[in-house]
Amino acid sequence: MSTFGTFYRVSTFGESHCKAVGCIVDGIPPGMAVEEQDIQRQLTRRRPGQSNLTTPRDEKDKVEILSGTERNVTLGTPVAMMVRNQDQRPHDYTDDTLDNFPRPSHADYTYLQKYGVKASSGGGRSSARETIGRVAAGALAEKFLKEAYGLEIVAFVSSVGQVAVPQYPSTSSINDVDASELPMSQEFLELLNTVTREQVDKEDVRCPDANVAERMRQRIMAAKAKNDSIGGTVTCVLRHVPIGLGEPAFDKLEALLAHAMMSIPATKGFEIGSGFRGTQVPGSLHNDPFVAKADGTLGTKTNWSGGIQGGISNGEHIYFRVAFKPPATISQEQQTTQYDGKEGVLSTRGRHDPCVVPRAIPIVESMAAIAIMDAVLAQDARAKSASQLSPAAVAALPRSMKKHNHPSV
Amino acid sequence: MSTFGTFYRVSTFGESHCKAVGCIVDGIPPGMAVEEQDIQRQLTRRRPGQSNLTTPRDEKDKVEILSGTERNVTLGTPVAMMVRNQDQRPHDYTDDTLDNFPRPSHADYTYLQKYGVKASSGGGRSSARETIGRVAAGALAEKFLKEAYGLEIVAFVSSVGQVAVPQYPSTSSINDVDASELPMSQEFLELLNTVTREQVDKEDVRCPDANVAERMRQRIMAAKAKNDSIGGTVTCVLRHVPIGLGEPAFDKLEALLAHAMMSIPATKGFEIGSGFRGTQVPGSLHNDPFVAKADGTLGTKTNWSGGIQGGISNGEHIYFRVAFKPPATISQEQQTTQYDGKEGVLSTRGRHDPCVVPRAIPIVESMAAIAIMDAVLAQDARAKSASQLSPAAVAALPRSMKKHNHPSV
Amino acid sequence: MSTFGTFYRVSTFGESHCKAVGCIVDGIPPGMAVEEQDIQRQLTRRRPGQSNLTTPRDEKDKVEILSGTERNVTLGTPVAMMVRNQDQRPHDYTDDTLDNFPRPSHADYTYLQKYGVKASSGGGRSSARETIGRVAAGALAEKFLKEAYGLEIVAFVSSVGQVAVPQYPSTSSINDVDASELPMSQEFLELLNTVTREQVDKEDVRCPDANVAERMRQRIMAAKAKNDSIGGTVTCVLRHVPIGLGEPAFDKLEALLAHAMMSIPATKGFEIGSGFRGTQVPGSLHNDPFVAKADGTLGTKTNWSGGIQGGISNGEHIYFRVAFKPPATISQEQQTTQYDGKEGVLSTRGRHDPCVVPRAIPIVESMAAIAIMDAVLAQDARAKSASQLSPAAVAALPRSMKKHNHPSV
Amino acid sequence: MSTFGTFYRVSTFGESHCKAVGCIVDGIPPGMAVEEQDIQRQLTRRRPGQSNLTTPRDEKDKVEILSGTERNVTLGTPVAMMVRNQDQRPHDYTDDTLDNFPRPSHADYTYLQKYGVKASSGGGRSSARETIGRVAAGALAEKFLKEAYGLEIVAFVSSVGQVAVPQYPSTSSINDVDASELPMSQEFLELLNTVTREQVDKEDVRCPDANVAERMRQRIMAAKAKNDSIGGTVTCVLRHVPIGLGEPAFDKLEALLAHAMMSIPATKGFEIGSGFRGTQVPGSLHNDPFVAKADGTLGTKTNWSGGIQGGISNGEHIYFRVAFKPPATISQEQQTTQYDGKEGVLSTRGRHDPCVVPRAIPIVESMAAIAIMDAVLAQDARAKSASQLSPAAVAALPRSMKKHNHPSV
Repeated sequence: MSTFGTFYRVSTFGESHCKAVGCIVDGIPPGMAVEEQDIQRQLTRRRPGQSNLTTPRDEKDKVEILSGTERNVTLGTPVAMMVRNQDQRPHDYTDDTLDNFPRPSHADYTYLQKYGVKASSGGGRSSARETIGRVAAGALAEKFLKEAYGLEIVAFVSSVGQVAVPQYPSTSSINDVDASELPMSQEFLELLNTVTREQVDKEDVRCPDANVAERMRQRIMAAKAKNDSIGGTVTCVLRHVPIGLGEPAFDKLEALLAHAMMSIPATKGFEIGSGFRGTQVPGSLHNDPFVAKADGTLGTKTNWSGGIQGGISNGEHIYFRVAFKPPATISQEQQTTQYDGKEGVLSTRGRHDPCVVPRAIPIVESMAAIAIMDAVLAQDARAKSASQLSPAAVAALPRSMKKHNHPSV
Repeated sequence: MSTFGTFYRVSTFGESHCKAVGCIVDGIPPGMAVEEQDIQRQLTRRRPGQSNLTTPRDEKDKVEILSGTERNVTLGTPVAMMVRNQDQRPHDYTDDTLDNFPRPSHADYTYLQKYGVKASSGGGRSSARETIGRVAAGALAEKFLKEAYGLEIVAFVSSVGQVAVPQYPSTSSINDVDASELPMSQEFLELLNTVTREQVDKEDVRCPDANVAERMRQRIMAAKAKNDSIGGTVTCVLRHVPIGLGEPAFDKLEALLAHAMMSIPATKGFEIGSGFRGTQVPGSLHNDPFVAKADGTLGTKTNWSGGIQGGISNGEHIYFRVAFKPPATISQEQQTTQYDGKEGVLSTRGRHDPCVVPRAIPIVESMAAIAIMDAVLAQDARAKSASQLSPAAVAALPRSMKKHNHPSV
Repeated sequence: MSTFGTFYRVSTFGESHCKAVGCIVDGIPPGMAVEEQDIQRQLTRRRPGQSNLTTPRDEKDKVEILSGTERNVTLGTPVAMMVRNQDQRPHDYTDDTLDNFPRPSHADYTYLQKYGVKASSGGGRSSARETIGRVAAGALAEKFLKEAYGLEIVAFVSSVGQVAVPQYPSTSSINDVDASELPMSQEFLELLNTVTREQVDKEDVRCPDANVAERMRQRIMAAKAKNDSIGGTVTCVLRHVPIGLGEPAFDKLEALLAHAMMSIPATKGFEIGSGFRGTQVPGSLHNDPFVAKADGTLGTKTNWSGGIQGGISNGEHIYFRVAFKPPATISQEQQTTQYDGKEGVLSTRGRHDPCVVPRAIPIVESMAAIAIMDAVLAQDARAKSASQLSPAAVAALPRSMKKHNHPSV
Repeated sequence: MSTFGTFYRVSTFGESHCKAVGCIVDGIPPGMAVEEQDIQRQLTRRRPGQSNLTTPRDEKDKVEILSGTERNVTLGTPVAMMVRNQDQRPHDYTDDTLDNFPRPSHADYTYLQKYGVKASSGGGRSSARETIGRVAAGALAEKFLKEAYGLEIVAFVSSVGQVAVPQYPSTSSINDVDASELPMSQEFLELLNTVTREQVDKEDVRCPDANVAERMRQRIMAAKAKNDSIGGTVTCVLRHVPIGLGEPAFDKLEALLAHAMMSIPATKGFEIGSGFRGTQVPGSLHNDPFVAKADGTLGTKTNWSGGIQGGISNGEHIYFRVAFKPPATISQEQQTTQYDGKEGVLSTRGRHDPCVVPRAIPIVESMAAIAIMDAVLAQDARAKSASQLSPAAVAALPRSMKKHNHPSV
C-alpha cells in the first residue's frame, strides 16, 4: 500500500505528471517547531539538476505545508505536505515507440499487467517523483529525532560500479587476528563514526573521500559517454540511536529498515552491520563483547551487530548499505520485444541520470528517519505504560529476569 | 509487532520455555484441503537434532490445528496452530554466570533494556522456537499457492563461511560480453531453474551440490571442533509466481520479502536478483529485454531483475539471498562485561548449533510463502473489483495507457 | 488515527484555518471514470450556507484531484483530493473570552489536555471542515459501488428534536400480531424502499416528508430564535448491497458502519435494523423468515436484521439511524469555568448552525460508502482466491457444510 | 478481520466445535503481575449454565496462558490464551432439518454465501464461544487499567424487553428546567456513579435493582415458557478514565467503543452519554458547563457528553448502552424456506438461552477494556514523545493555543 508505519504513519501520493505529489504524516508529536524550510532542505538535496552527473531537468520542488501546524508549531494532527508538479502534461516524453514497447527493466509492463491501465508517462508511481513525499515525511521525523535524542543520520555514496570506498581489511593482521576474517576495516568504521552531511555534500557525487569521489565521477561520466548507466551503493549511519527500538518478532528494527530501504525505487540489496561479509567470520570474532561506558551503561567493544541485537537497538551506531541497480533508462538502442510480441529495436532519447546514487542520499536518510520514528513511538507507548505499573512484580522476580543494581540498568 | 501481513495476517506467540508456541493465521481462503501432516512436514524440516551438524536437542514439535478447519477443509476463519514446548521449566540452561553476564551478540541485554524484564532463559522471543509459528503459517500459505498457481518455493544453503556454491561468472566472456560484468553465471541460473527440495534434503547441510556440501560440512565441523560457529547464506527461488504481485509504493514485492527475511533471527543481509553484484554492471547489460513466450505472453530474456520490476512481479522466477551471521552462542570463553559493569570471562557450556543455515531453509521458504500470499490477496481484491467496472473507460484511453490487442494482454 | 479502512484506506488531513483540507484514498480500483464534478456534487451538498437553517458562511469548497487519475480515469494509485481553505487566518473568530474559557461540550479542553497545544480557532480537527476529506473519499467509493453493483445510498433527516418521521407502528394490530411488538411501521419500511436523494433535497431540512419537514423547520427556527440549538437523527438506507460483505469476528459489517458513523463529529448513537426498539420484540416476531426470490436466490420476508446477519450482508436493504447532539456552539450566555478555575460567564457571538443534521446527510452517506467499499474489497480478495482452489475439497463435504444444488447457491 | 486494535492488538480464533478457542494479545506492558485466575474470573461469569435463565450446557472453560508470562509476570511479549472445547464433535446439534434450512436470523445463510462452506454446527465464528478470546483479552487489559489508573468498568442489564431500569426523568421539573427535556434522571446517573460488579452479580439476571431484576426474570421466564426469546440492553460505565484518550479523526473514543460493542454477536445499537434521547434536548441544557475540581483540574457539572468531548475522554465517567436483539434460536416451529427454495416448517429442539443479556455483561466489559487499552497506548506514545521536545516552542505561542498557568493545566 502507499502507507508506511504503524505509529508514525506516512501516506504518499502522486505520479510524474499529475498535479502534485506529497504526503500525509500521522503521528508527529505535538509542540514541535517546524517550518517549510526545515523540509525544503532535504527536498532540495533530492532534486535533479544539481550537477552534470544528474538529469538537468530543474523541477524546483517547493514544498507547502497544508495542515497540522500553526505558527510553525505542530498540533499533533496530520501534517499534509505537497509539491506541485511543474509539468502536468500527460504523455510528454513518450512517443509512438514507447507506446509499442514496454521499456526493459522498467515498470511499464508490470504496471499494465497489474492495473490494466497505466499513466501515459510510464510507470507512474514507480517514478522518482514519488519519493518527494517520503523525503518530506522523513525530514519531519528527523527534526523530531534530532531534537529529542540528538540523532544523526548521514548517508553517503560508498560505491559506483566497482569504484568503492575501501571497506574491508587489507592488512594481514589486527591484534594477532587474521584481518581477512574481520568484517570491516578500522578506517571504514572510523569514517562511520565521523562522517557529516557537509563532508558528503562537498562532492557532487556525495562521497566523502575526495579521491574515491573523483574516480566515481569518472566512472559515471564514462557511462554517460557510452549512453549507458551504472549502479552503486549507499551506506548510511545513524548515531545516538536510543536503546530499545524495534518490535520483535516481525518488526525487528533491521526488518523495518530493510522494508524501508527496499521500497525505494531501483534498490536490489540491503545489509546491516557485518552484512554478507559477516557470514564468513567465525562467531568468536563476530560477537561484540560488552564494555562499561563512562556514563555507567554498557556498550560493545566492536559493533559487527550494526547497533541491533535480537532485533532491538543497543545504543551503538546503526549502519547499513543499500544496493542500487544501474538506471534502466539508457540512450542506447535496445533489442527487445513489443507489447504485440514482435521483436524490434527500442531507442530512447532524452537526458537521463546515468547513476542515481548521489540523488538517493536524502531518500535513504528519510526512509531511515521514518522507520526509526515508528520504532520510537512504539517503544514510547510501552515504556510509558509499563512505568505506571507497580514495580513490585518485577522486583520479586529472580535476578536472571530483571535489571540489576547497576547505574546502567 | 508480532503480526505480519495485511491480507494474510500471521500472528505468532511463544518463547523458549513457556507452555506452547504457535500462530493464528487470518485470511486463508475457504474450501482448501489441509491436514496436520501438511504443516508437520515443514516443521519437521525445521527441527533441531536432524544431523550432527545441528543441536541434538530433540524437540518433537508435533503441530495441532486448533481451529479454522472442519473435516480437513478450511472454513475461511482463523486457523490457530500450536506446538507444545516439551521443556517448560524456566531457567533451565542458565546459571549464575548467565545471571551476571549479558551474552555477547545475544538479545539478553537489549530485551532487558527494552522490556525491563526478560525470560529467564535469555532472549525469549528471540529464540529459534519463535519461528515455529512462522513455519506453520508458511506451510499453510504454500499449500494454497501450490494448488492455485503451481508455485514452487525452494531454498538451499548457498554458502557456509567462505565455502560457496559458485555464483559468479568465471569464464572470460559470454557471447562477446565481458563475463566479469555479468551479475551471475549461467550454471547458477540453471541451478535456480531446476533445484528441488528433494535435492536439497539429500545433504544434511542442505546444499544441492554434493561437492560443495561436503566442504560445507567440513567447515561446520571445523567450527564445532574449535567450539566456534560460522555463518552462511541461503538462496531461495520461487517459480511460477503470478504476474502483478506487489503493492507500491511501500509494499513493493522486494520490500515485503526483505521485511520477511530480515525478521528471521540472525539475518544480516538480503539481496534480490542481481543484488549487490548488479551495482557493478552497466545498465545496457543489466536490463532484461522482453521476449515473446510460447503462450503469447511476454517474458524476459535475462532475469537480472529477479522476477520483479517496479516492485511488481513479472512472472519470471523470483530469487534472493539471505545472510545469516555466525551463531552467537559458542562454547568458548569470552572476555566481556557483567551487567554491573565488571569485566570478566563468560563461559557457556552445552551443545549449540555451530551453524544455523541448514535449519533456516524451511523458515526462509515459509516467510517467502507468507509474503507472497499477502501480495496475492491484495492483487485479487484489485483484480476482482476492477473486473466489475465497465471496460468502456479504459477502452477510450489512448494506446499508451492501456493493454494492446495482443493475446498476452 | 486519521486513517479509516484496511483495503480502501482513507487518510484525511486539515483543520479549520490551515491552508487546505483533504484526503488520500488508497485502494480505488483502476479503470474507473471519475472527474472532479463527481466529487464536487456531494461536497456542495455538505457546504454550509445553503439555506437559512444553516450557518451562512459560504466556503465554496472547490475540490481538486491531485493524483491517481489521468484523462479522468483512475490509475489504481492513490487519489489525493484537496479543498483550499478560504480563510487561512488563525484565530479569526476567537477573542479574549475564548482564550480564557474552554467552550462547554466543545473539544477545546480535551484537545489541549491531549496534545498540550491546540489550534487557535478551537478544536481544530474536531471542526466540521475535517469532514470534507471524508465526503470526497466517500463520493469516490460511491461512484464505484454504483457502477459495479447499482448500490444506492440515501440518507435523510428522520428527526429534529421531538419532531420525527413516524417510525413505529401506531395501529393496534398487523395480521393478528400486536403491532406494538413490531419494531417498525410498514409506512416507514416503505419509505426506506423508495426514498431518493432528489426527494430528500427538495426540502432544505432534508426530510422527504413535506409535512414533517415543515415542522422540523419550525423547530430549528425556534431554537435559532432562542439563540439555542437542537439535535436530530439521520436515517440511511443502502439498497442493492452485495451478499457476503463484513469480516467477522471484529469487522462485522454493522461494527464497521458503527465505527464510521460514530467517528462523525457530534454523533451520540447508532442503531441498525430493528435497533433499540428490537430489544423489546420477541424472537418469534423478530426473526426474518426466508423466502425464495424470483431470481432463485433467497431473501427474507421481513428485514428486522437490517440487511446483516452474523455480521455479514444478506442482500436485503441495510438501514441504520444515527443520533446527532445539539450543536455546542450557542449564542447564549453560559455559566461555566475558566481554564484557571474561576467561574464566569461565557458569551459567544457569531452565526452558528442551530442544527447540523441537514448538512450531515452527505457525510453519513459518504462514511457508509467508505465502510461498504472496504468490505467489498475484503470479500473480493477472498472470493477471487477461493475460486482458484479445486472445488473437490468442498464437494466431498457433508451437505450441512456446503451450498446445495439450488440455482440460488 | 479477527484482529481488534492497533496498539493493543487482540486476535481471536475458534468455532463451536473445533479443538479450542482463544486469543493472542500483543502489546500488554511488561512487568505486570497476572495469573490464570485473573482471567478465569471473567470467563466464569461469561459461562452458560449459571442459572435457569441461561442455557444449561456446562462448558467449564478453563483458561490456559500459553505464553508471554513467566512466574506470573508479563514479559511484554504476546500473551496467548486458550480454552479447550469440551465438545469437539462436528455436527452435534444439527440434523437433517438444519441441513435443509438456513435458520432465520442466524448466520447459516450468510456464512455459506460468504465463504462457500460452513461449519456443520452452523455459523461457526458467529457462535457465542468466539467471545471467549475477547473476554480473556479484556480481562488482561482490565488488570492493567485497574492497576495503572484505578479504572473501574461495570456493566449491568438495564432492560429486558420492555422491563427497564428507569432511565428518563419522571418528575415534571428539575431546578426550573422542564425535566422532560433532560436526557436522564438523577437517580440513573447516581446508579452509574456507584454501581459495582458485586451488586450486579447479586441477581442472576445481572440487574442491580432487585425489583426490576425480579420483573426481568419473569419476562425471561415468560419467553421461555412460550419457547420464545427476548432482547434487552446492557449499560456500561467506566470510572476513573484518564483524560486524553481517543484518536481523532476516525478513532474517536466513542467510535472505537461503538466498533467494539457492535462486533459482539446479536448487538443492534449503541448510544453514549445522552444518546438518542439527547437529540431532543436543546443545546443550552445539553452542554456540560465546566467546574473546578478539588484537585485543581476542571471537570464538568453535568455529563451528558458521557465523558467524551471531540472524541477524546475528559476524565468524567464514560457510560454507554448496547442493544441486544432477541436470540434467533427459539424452540418454536417457524415458517420459512429451505436452501433449495421450498417453503417449509423448521422446528429446532434443544435448550437455548431465551435472553442473552445477563451473559453478555462480561463480554461488554471486556470489549470496553480492550478499546480503552488501545487508546491508552496510543496516547502514551504521544505523551512520552512530546515530553522529549523542548517546551520553548509551545511556550512562545499565544495564550489561545496552549495550557495556562493553572495547576490543572
